[in-house]
Amino acid sequence: MSKEAATPLGRPRDPGVDERVTRAAMELYGDIGWSGFTVEAVAKLARVGKASIYRRWPSAEALMTYAWEHRFTHVEDVDTGAVRGDLVELAAQMLELYVGESGRAALRVISEAATVPALAATLETQRRAQIQAARAIVRRAIERRELSSDTPVTILLDCLVGGAMLHVLSTPPERLPELRVEIPSVAARLVEFLLYNRTIGQAEPPAT
Amino acid sequence: MSKEAATPLGRPRDPGVDERVTRAAMELYGDIGWSGFTVEAVAKLARVGKASIYRRWPSAEALMTYAWEHRFTHVEDVDTGAVRGDLVELAAQMLELYVGESGRAALRVISEAATVPALAATLETQRRAQIQAARAIVRRAIERRELSSDTPVTILLDCLVGGAMLHVLSTPPERLPELRVEIPSVAARLVEFLLYNRTIGQAEPPAT
Repeated sequence: MSKEAATPLGRPRDPGVDERVTRAAMELYGDIGWSGFTVEAVAKLARVGKASIYRRWPSAEALMTYAWEHRFTHVEDVDTGAVRGDLVELAAQMLELYVGESGRAALRVISEAATVPALAATLETQRRAQIQAARAIVRRAIERRELSSDTPVTILLDCLVGGAMLHVLSTPPERLPELRVEIPSVAARLVEFLLYNRTIGQAEPPAT
Repeated sequence: MSKEAATPLGRPRDPGVDERVTRAAMELYGDIGWSGFTVEAVAKLARVGKASIYRRWPSAEALMTYAWEHRFTHVEDVDTGAVRGDLVELAAQMLELYVGESGRAALRVISEAATVPALAATLETQRRAQIQAARAIVRRAIERRELSSDTPVTILLDCLVGGAMLHVLSTPPERLPELRVEIPSVAARLVEFLLYNRTIGQAEPPAT
């Protein structure tokens, strides 16, 4: 995959400027949202000239889409070999997303996606990746006979993602650095709660 | 409690205007957020003069706080006599909140509370009401020996509220009217999932 292909006007790129601009774009979007998202405001925050943004992205919308694709924590499929490990990993990814540097942008897009078409598409892609990852985890767990075949995947995902999101939201800002360190244990507790008495292996110890 | 006490300048109130203004305030806030929330914009949307807003509320902030307190679906404690019924009722309240007319405002405040002090206080009050309701439900369930005394209340609440929120978010806009009708069954399925094999009564049928 050529990185150049993603550069609208094909000029040589300065990775330092790209980094500053996309980081500023996410920060600005997280702070004030789409209604205040202009190339001028991003340029000011990133301390670059407007021209150097327009050389790479023809519009605020193109910049936002690019920043989203390159700075956002994307959910990846995980396969640890066991449903508990898989879900803990997925929960940890969600917690990383919301406490990470793009966390506020991730929360904001939830409420703005309905009114901003470019964001709606982005959020839909993200949501699909989450659903796909969760479905793959549950499908493998059913194949391995760890979970019952009627496990409600969508509700499981809603509770896992929503639970991770709410956990971050209810953490006071000054405690967020601590939460970043505690992500593995919070993810484990969340999954422990959701899988309680649900894994088939737990109810039937192997015959000796 | 005198309603007049909430009117900063003590003039006789026109309930029709109040209704239009507070509804417009929630709509505007839901659409573009705090960065675009001005008395002028609310006045335009509500089709009233700016002066009639300033007669009642001295600032955009005072109007927003008032609208929030009067138009928002507040979580109320529920006591149906059984943990399942209590949680279904709580889940239904959450679903109502997010699919209701102030739903978009409810989602938006989540991402803006950290940057707008007036909203932070409002969200904190709302969050406390939710935690209090959930704690009361679980406490009574433990007293009735429906749930184990080590049930993690906070994780249960995060999954219940987060699950309801995500369910609404992942419903396409054109399906929202249907969802409004399905709230009782969605709430029941969500609670069924969270209480799976968890209620003590379920595991131990009463001796006969």
